[in-house]
Amino acid sequence: MSTAASTVERPSRARIIADLQALLGDAGLLHLPEDLHPYECDGLSAYRQLPLAVALPETVEQVRAVLGYASRHAIPVVARGAGTGLSGGALPHTEGILLSLAKFNRILDIDPRNRTARVQPGVRNLAISEAAKPYGLYYAPDPSSQIACSIGGNVAENSGGVHCLKYGLTVHNLVELEILTIDGERLRIGNAAPDAPGYDLLALMTGSEGMLGVITEVTVKLLPIPERAQVILAAFDDVARAGHAVGAIIAAGIIPAGLEMMDRLAIRAAEDFVHAGYPEVEAILLCELDGTNEEVSEHISQVRRLLQTHGAVEVRTATDEAERARFWQGRKAAFPAVGRISPDYYCMDGTIPRSRLAEVLTRIGELSREYDLAVANVFHAGDGNLHPLILYDANNPGELERTEEFGGRILELCVEVGGTITGEHGVGMEKIDQMCVQFRPLELAQFHAIKAAFDPAGLLNPGKAVPTLHRCAEFGAMHVHQGQLPHPELERF
Amino acid sequence: MSTAASTVERPSRARIIADLQALLGDAGLLHLPEDLHPYECDGLSAYRQLPLAVALPETVEQVRAVLGYASRHAIPVVARGAGTGLSGGALPHTEGILLSLAKFNRILDIDPRNRTARVQPGVRNLAISEAAKPYGLYYAPDPSSQIACSIGGNVAENSGGVHCLKYGLTVHNLVELEILTIDGERLRIGNAAPDAPGYDLLALMTGSEGMLGVITEVTVKLLPIPERAQVILAAFDDVARAGHAVGAIIAAGIIPAGLEMMDRLAIRAAEDFVHAGYPEVEAILLCELDGTNEEVSEHISQVRRLLQTHGAVEVRTATDEAERARFWQGRKAAFPAVGRISPDYYCMDGTIPRSRLAEVLTRIGELSREYDLAVANVFHAGDGNLHPLILYDANNPGELERTEEFGGRILELCVEVGGTITGEHGVGMEKIDQMCVQFRPLELAQFHAIKAAFDPAGLLNPGKAVPTLHRCAEFGAMHVHQGQLPHPELERF
Repeated sequence: MSTAASTVERPSRARIIADLQALLGDAGLLHLPEDLHPYECDGLSAYRQLPLAVALPETVEQVRAVLGYASRHAIPVVARGAGTGLSGGALPHTEGILLSLAKFNRILDIDPRNRTARVQPGVRNLAISEAAKPYGLYYAPDPSSQIACSIGGNVAENSGGVHCLKYGLTVHNLVELEILTIDGERLRIGNAAPDAPGYDLLALMTGSEGMLGVITEVTVKLLPIPERAQVILAAFDDVARAGHAVGAIIAAGIIPAGLEMMDRLAIRAAEDFVHAGYPEVEAILLCELDGTNEEVSEHISQVRRLLQTHGAVEVRTATDEAERARFWQGRKAAFPAVGRISPDYYCMDGTIPRSRLAEVLTRIGELSREYDLAVANVFHAGDGNLHPLILYDANNPGELERTEEFGGRILELCVEVGGTITGEHGVGMEKIDQMCVQFRPLELAQFHAIKAAFDPAGLLNPGKAVPTLHRCAEFGAMHVHQGQLPHPELERF
Repeated sequence: MSTAASTVERPSRARIIADLQALLGDAGLLHLPEDLHPYECDGLSAYRQLPLAVALPETVEQVRAVLGYASRHAIPVVARGAGTGLSGGALPHTEGILLSLAKFNRILDIDPRNRTARVQPGVRNLAISEAAKPYGLYYAPDPSSQIACSIGGNVAENSGGVHCLKYGLTVHNLVELEILTIDGERLRIGNAAPDAPGYDLLALMTGSEGMLGVITEVTVKLLPIPERAQVILAAFDDVARAGHAVGAIIAAGIIPAGLEMMDRLAIRAAEDFVHAGYPEVEAILLCELDGTNEEVSEHISQVRRLLQTHGAVEVRTATDEAERARFWQGRKAAFPAVGRISPDYYCMDGTIPRSRLAEVLTRIGELSREYDLAVANVFHAGDGNLHPLILYDANNPGELERTEEFGGRILELCVEVGGTITGEHGVGMEKIDQMCVQFRPLELAQFHAIKAAFDPAGLLNPGKAVPTLHRCAEFGAMHVHQGQLPHPELERF
């Protein structure tokens, strides 16, 4: 186990850099300010910070050496995949090492018989499906950033994506992980067996946001590429009606491969950007069905009927692969598309029970008028995972503050209806205070006990994902005082 | 946190009984030998032990009081559901309290809109589906003991069943748990949201075999009862061929609701017992398909074709519900059926990669001849979860020992081909030594750290599920000496 941080004398900055250079070679360590800049934030640019140094190890032994060094000298370590995260989870620590896994980019093995791929953590999500394609297989979870994001980061965040409604999140598509603890111990966790003995460390590690260990190898499940996939676009002149249609599809026992919603502003932004051919309406649903030919035919006609009886003003089915790709292109480009029509936007990420969808969308619309800030809604409707994008201009005095308050109100609303303060984007830096709303002190204390079982000195990604009870006490007291948030002791949901 | 066990002076036996009576009332505590006997073992009768007392609390406050008392006086606590477990997980501790949750048998809420059921831990598995039936819903995981086993025990063991191939294990069908820690802290863990923040304590708790906390409430997912379910029986004159057919069905992208195999001896025993109408062959497969009418029709014809091309000598499809029930009856009664034809049997539970099924069955046959002990194979073929039943007579000198050695060889074989030493039956007492084969000391040490994060004094179910490193060192050394098992340090799979 690590020596407690408080008893260790910390080497000078120059000493640390020299020591790490000795471990990694000159090419393995960045420490000049201009080299550190690309690492100052992840996809959430609201928080920026330079690390002491960036380590770029090439081998597991080098990772182990860096962790061992950090552990001995009580230096914080923040692991980083591709840096596409949206909650500041990879934000560097100013006194710590930013550990980039970018050089761990090899696909080690594709096993078509057992349908698994063993890869290094820096491999891009989409690269796995590309490598598996010759065998008729693919890796199902598909975050919007799948061209760029790394599988190691996907594991750390338990990433979702359009296809996760049917095929599950990252955690449901993993077989095994190899991790290094902060003490440099190499653990292999997980198993291909459906019900392996021992505590489920694989699930515990997945979504733990770099707090418990550093991922050095990932074995994922591959699925057969479906015989057929087809997408339906349905237009509605009312968002609540689109919300009800989502519930009706799921209630019919159909699990679409994807079920996404966009509202008027998101539709218009996407249309201006990529010309997907979307109609000018209040909301659209995109519903993808996949499976065998017969299944898809049957489901397509069932879903079309349901959409029509639930008030869709237009229902189109993509007739070929080109049209299917076009339908999806608008959805996948929605975030950058909104970026084109507003100087700044704030992407929220909360979840709600599917049954409350229509109600929550209506209330977000009311809040939008109250705060006089436009909102574009683009989200995984089938999962109840919302992504309201609040449009603002940071150059207008007070607008950023109004945006943040508005965002806080949306998250409170999610918790109020029985949801959570983050869906697939994680807690990171951004949601750390909202964790005090989501969880009671007892549950947070148990999270800290788990953290201590892996990283007793708290060196991995300090200050992220799980707030200290002290922080929550301050945050809770402040907000109860202002009458904004329920006190975490009094109420959980 | 608990005070460390070693520093606490233990009250006398009489004192403990008097104190617990004060907490629970006379009706809430059993302590006379004749009252303790029904609790001396679970379904694995090879280990028997009487507890100091049996606590039968009726309220969460009483459970909390018992745990608080045990924690203050360093008294072991073993929680027990219905006692149908098969690995000795609920075996009492002679110096400890057996905590029965039998009186926690109320269904608290069925929520058809969100498709969940909130129940107490002592509710029987099947009772949940019965309560949900009026809403057209059911609870999917179905252990063979589902008439008797409790949902709390299902969570503790992460139980499977015939339908888990398609619908997942217990962990995949949970929404939320309420647990009490040994310190009496009440944690609510889990969330209906697909990707809730915080470490995944729900997955960690599920399958943890009563080592981390006591479950006091369970919220499960309910699924719509499928429009149609139909079962195919296929006969083979060779077990290996049946094994290949299983792989072919899964490879075709079909996920049956259940895919079970029985070999000649199991077929004959079941047939003698319940007259299911099984043919006299080397192996049968039972393949259930469910879904919409159209899906099932399509899958039935696909599976029939696959079975025929993979050498089935006969393929029957149940034409009505009565025939479907009869096909399954033989499978569900297979364990007691084998009990009728042999004085004793030893039920093994291991998993293997599905692709190695044919090979492993062949090798079990060879071992059966080597040890001169008959084996009946009845198992979840689709999951690769084997249940070889070794037939023996404990009255024949040396036969029990030969059986245990044979069983050990089967488990080694499972690990050798990349599987695990237990599937759905858990580790409990029975597999504790085999955990030393499955895991390296580093992983076991991490399990102990997790245990300590919940139960630092080690009072919950001591001696089960995770072996001490000391025990593994002794076990490993002994077996390496005899040349039977790989040393855990040298090899994991």
